[in-house]
Order: sequence, then structure tokens, then C-alpha cells
Amino acid sequence: MSEVYAVRRGLLRDRFAAAGSAAALVSRPANVRYLAGGAPPGAVLLLGPGEDVLLCPRAPAGDPPHGRPDEQLRLTVLPDDDGDPVVAAAGLAGGLHAGSLAVEEHDLTVARHRAMAAAAPRLRLCDLGSTVEQLRLVKDEEEIACLRIAAEITDQALGELLESILVGRTERHLALELERRLVDHGADGPAFATSVGTGPHSGQGRHRPTDRRVEEGDFLSVGLGANYRGYRCEIGRTFVIGTSPADWQIELYDLVFAAQKAGREALVPGAAYRDVDRAARHLLDSAGHSDGLPPSTGHGVGLEIDEDPQLAPTAMGKLDACVPVTVEPGVHLPGRGGVRIDDTLVVRPEADGGPELLTITTKELLAL
Amino acid sequence: MSEVYAVRRGLLRDRFAAAGSAAALVSRPANVRYLAGGAPPGAVLLLGPGEDVLLCPRAPAGDPPHGRPDEQLRLTVLPDDDGDPVVAAAGLAGGLHAGSLAVEEHDLTVARHRAMAAAAPRLRLCDLGSTVEQLRLVKDEEEIACLRIAAEITDQALGELLESILVGRTERHLALELERRLVDHGADGPAFATSVGTGPHSGQGRHRPTDRRVEEGDFLSVGLGANYRGYRCEIGRTFVIGTSPADWQIELYDLVFAAQKAGREALVPGAAYRDVDRAARHLLDSAGHSDGLPPSTGHGVGLEIDEDPQLAPTAMGKLDACVPVTVEPGVHLPGRGGVRIDDTLVVRPEADGGPELLTITTKELLAL
Repeated sequence: MSEVYAVRRGLLRDRFAAAGSAAALVSRPANVRYLAGGAPPGAVLLLGPGEDVLLCPRAPAGDPPHGRPDEQLRLTVLPDDDGDPVVAAAGLAGGLHAGSLAVEEHDLTVARHRAMAAAAPRLRLCDLGSTVEQLRLVKDEEEIACLRIAAEITDQALGELLESILVGRTERHLALELERRLVDHGADGPAFATSVGTGPHSGQGRHRPTDRRVEEGDFLSVGLGANYRGYRCEIGRTFVIGTSPADWQIELYDLVFAAQKAGREALVPGAAYRDVDRAARHLLDSAGHSDGLPPSTGHGVGLEIDEDPQLAPTAMGKLDACVPVTVEPGVHLPGRGGVRIDDTLVVRPEADGGPELLTITTKELLAL
Repeated sequence: MSEVYAVRRGLLRDRFAAAGSAAALVSRPANVRYLAGGAPPGAVLLLGPGEDVLLCPRAPAGDPPHGRPDEQLRLTVLPDDDGDPVVAAAGLAGGLHAGSLAVEEHDLTVARHRAMAAAAPRLRLCDLGSTVEQLRLVKDEEEIACLRIAAEITDQALGELLESILVGRTERHLALELERRLVDHGADGPAFATSVGTGPHSGQGRHRPTDRRVEEGDFLSVGLGANYRGYRCEIGRTFVIGTSPADWQIELYDLVFAAQKAGREALVPGAAYRDVDRAARHLLDSAGHSDGLPPSTGHGVGLEIDEDPQLAPTAMGKLDACVPVTVEPGVHLPGRGGVRIDDTLVVRPEADGGPELLTITTKELLAL
């Protein structure tokens, strides 16, 4: 596995060297983990001009939830109170006469950037931009295997919840129980804060659970995902509580289902991000639900739960094979609730069977 | 309650006006919440030169875990995809010919700062520094009341756990159960990731729970806290599992207990931060445990779990009355485990009875 990280670092090195930098400093935690195998809290990765170094503010723990750093990589633990690792890295690069150092300006604060400049006045700091994020877009099969396991865990946790009594329980309790089940089934933790919304709260993507209790006749929306070895997936489902759904519930469900299906079917290599979004969105728009639609109907997942690409009306770019994304349209009617259906899929060529659905929990409208 | 926020904003305005700025932009979420009463995700607060405005990337939710913004404050919700609220704020301040705008350079990324400068080229961006953090140091009685409730919830959750069977359960499960109990008792959530460490993992401050199970003869360390209306407290306790502790366990416990007591007793208005640290630390040092001591033996708490002051050997400054801090020395012996004892207290003058202990769970060595 170690070679994988060395290869990734090599690719990054090619990019920043081509842009004229002798060295780069990676500080965004997901980027550090991608390149170093593990990102102990606060660790930053200095690539070149000398040996690659992972600078950590303290020694990594024995059983780390943030991954285990590649053993091929030099690991420097800074003494207590020895300040910020990015400043130490600037000092190191300055001492080696790197000339210029590419940094992640979208991650570093102005204050840290200034402290680096002060520590190495001869070093020219330039912007690495989102180079590492771009490398992270297309996943290798090892990464997809982690996402697949994360999705299996997620499906199991959700499946068990559906077998239990729901009426009378609060959104908070259901969310906590889902998170416990994720961990029971082997997740390192939830991929993001689990969302449970009942009745008027249903149908919203990131609703924070409240003390509202599930009632007969409610829509119940859940959004959850497992984090497995750093890789995060996402599922969203909406159910009805009680014997039989009302007509407006069936109608709204069928509409969102159709929109989500259209989005999933648009996931082919070469499809423009905005066209995937439009496929899902236009059905909701035509049905008069353009108000209150979320700004995107899907996004990439990986070491972060919300990473590139964005499937949104103004997004630029086209899907590649082996890019995992969510497709998650939803409609929320203020005061009444709504429906959201969300899957994690991997873009695959048609010759390989088309998009690979990772989250396989049924999307039939279940009455629980 | 609304006046409180207006008064705080007035104090901040005095500070930045004295430093020569016509306007300030607060972006750090805890600072926004302190001044605005609520900090919807991504919201930033622009003070002056015109009316104060809370700029939000989307409409605040109905039942917000991040507080409810002061109704006296103008609230501007940016249209979808209308970019970064800090850029919108720079445009607003530039349009009002503010001249200069003080920003939180320790919070803003270089990329966001650059986008602000581009949006308002005539605006001079200067540094607000940690002015708001300084205002937050001394708490008013309303804030302390929130911390007191947070501590009560925390004590309840911990007390219930102690009544249950512990042997055979994993660190992860115990941590999840503690977090569920915090929420059951009215917390908005855990104040930080609950830490449970058994056997060789015990005695570490921020140990991340693993699948190790509690065994007879183990030390068991827990660290948890409730978040109540944004205010976060912290408790840490260490127990022994089984009938009777070993001699080394009693000895180590007594030592850490004495160190923690010394730290607590040093909490008087006017005491230097470093002297409080030294009071707790020197007992551990003299017993030969200087290796592996944490860099600080306590810190402030409030809207963030780890805020100023730092009780550390090189910290500068003196305690004021009404500053809540933790006192949390610990010793961890690699391979064997250790002891950590952590309380949240409020500094009070001796005339008022001395430090107010918020976390009242017993510190006797309990054999469970």
C-alpha cells in the first residue's frame, strides 16, 4: 500500500515542479491523508526540496482513527510548544534554499501564512491551489473498495433501524442509534452528522435532529453514512409512518424518485456536471418545485463527505470514470415536510455495466 | 438577552475604532455567536460603518443548534451560489467607503482574504487579531449559568454510566453511551469527542476510543462534557475496574489527585497562568513524571472547548474572576496506563468562597 502514497506524491511533485516550485507544503487534513496515508491531528506534509517530511505537533497515537502514516515517509514530531508545523516547515524549506514553496492558500489562514513568511524571509510563497483535490477526484480501486465497505455498513445500520419500532421516538434518539449501529458494524465513525427529520422536518438534506417524535402519518427522512478508513459515503431515504401514505405523499415521493433516477442514469463518463444536475432538477422544476431546491443535487465523496465535483447548475467540468458521487434531489414543502432520496454511486463506463450503486437499501416507498 | 449582544458589539466597536478601523468583520464561528447570539453555518458579522449585518449563506433553520441570532441585528441571507459571505461583506464595506476593515486573520484563509481584497480594492484590510477572544475571556453570570447546566448534565451522564456493568464493554460503546446520555439530559450535543481509555490507554487526555474491552484490574479513564446553548464544559475521571486497586494504581492516583488539587487551589484572581500550571505540574515532575506530561494542565472553556487562557509553563497573563478553566493534570505510563483527573471550575475571589467547582462527580478512587 505504501507505494500508492509514493506514486501520489510523485504525481503532485510533477505538477508543482511544472508550475515552477521546488517544494510544496500540504496542510489540508484530507490532502495530507491522501498523500501520506495518515494525517495525525495538525500534521502537515512538506514535499521536497529534500526528503519528504510529515511534521506532526505530537507523536501519532497507537490506534489512529486518522490513518497510519506511510512508513516510507520521514516523520518529525515537533517538541511541545514548538509552535506551528507550517512555520517549522517553512524554516526547513528556507534552510534548504528551496527558493519557492507552494502552499494551500485555501487552507492556510492569513496569520499562519504571515508567520511562515516571517520564519523564512527568502522563501517565495506561492499558491498550490486545489492541485491535490484534483488528484483526489478519480479514485483507484482500493479507495472504491473502502467506499463500498462504508456503504455496506451504512445499509446495515439503516436496515436494522427499519426493523425497530419508530413511532414515539425522537429524531435525536434515532440519529444516535444509527450512529451507534454504524460503529457496531465497523465504521470508524459517522461520515457526517446523521440527519433524521420527521413530519414537517422531513425532506431536508442536513436537518439537525430535534426532540420532535415520530408520529403516525409522518414522512421520516434519514441521511447517514459511515466513515471507513477515512472514506465517507452517504445515503438518504424517506419513509412514511403508519398504514398507508396519503395521496400527496405518494405523488411527491414518485416525483423525487423519478428525479433521482434521472440523475443516476445521467452518470456516464464524459457527462457534464451541470447536465447530471439538470437531469435530476428539471423534473422537480417542471412540477413547480423550483423554489427551495438545494443549490446542488449531488457531489463527490471520498476522504471528505463533500468534495469535488459539485453537480450544480453552474458547475464546470465533466465526469470521469471511477468518480464516486451522490445523487440526492429532494423537495421540502414548508410546514408539511418532504422527500429526499440520496445514493452514493461510482461513475463507470456502460461497457462495465454503467454507474455502480454502492448504497443498495431499497428506494420503494416503505410504510413503516 | 438581546441587549447583551448589543453591549458586546459596542465594546468591540470601541476597540477597533481605537485602533483606527471604521468597520470590522468577524468570521470565527464562536466569535460570531458571542456577538450575534447565533452563528448559522457560514455566517459572518459585519460591524459598521453602517448598520451591523449578519450575512448568512442560507436562511437559519427553525430549531438551530447554533443559537438564534439577536433579533435587533439585520440579517442578510445571500442568494444561492452568491459566493462567500466574507466577499459580500467586503463589497458592502467598500461600497460604504469604510476606508479600512479589520478582519480575523487567524480565521480567514489566504484565498478568502485575497477574494475580499479583489472585491473591494479601495478597502484597506487590517488585522482584528484576537480582540473578540479577549472579550470572551471573562464570562458574565448568564454564561456561567449555561456552563453550570452543562456541568450538571455531564455529571448526570457520568453518574449513570458508573451504575452500569462495565467489564467486557468496548471503549467505543462506552463513549457512545455517554454521548447518548448527555443528549438525554438536555445537552445540545457533546462538547467534544468523548474519550474513553481502558488499561494501557488510560490516563491520556484525548484518547480516541477503540474496540478494546474493559478488563478486571484496568484503569478506566473517561473525558466528556456537554454542550449547552453553545457553552462547553469538561470532566475527566479515572476509575479502577474490579475488587481492589493494585499498589501502583493507588500510588499513581494519589499523586495525580494531589497535583490536581494543588492546581485547583491555585485558582485565585490575580494568579499567573503559569503559576497555576506549575502548582499542578511540580508534584508530577518531582515524582519523576516530567516525560509525557501534556503541554498544558488546563485551559479556558466557554463557546469553545479549548479557549484562552492556557495554563501552561510559558503562558503569559493572570487569571481574572469569572474565568472558567479546566484543571486536568494526568500521567500516562506507556504500556501500563495512567490517571487523569479533570474539572471545570470558575475563578472566584476568596471572599466569594474561592473557585467554584462546576463538575462535582466524586474524585475518590472508585473501584467499579
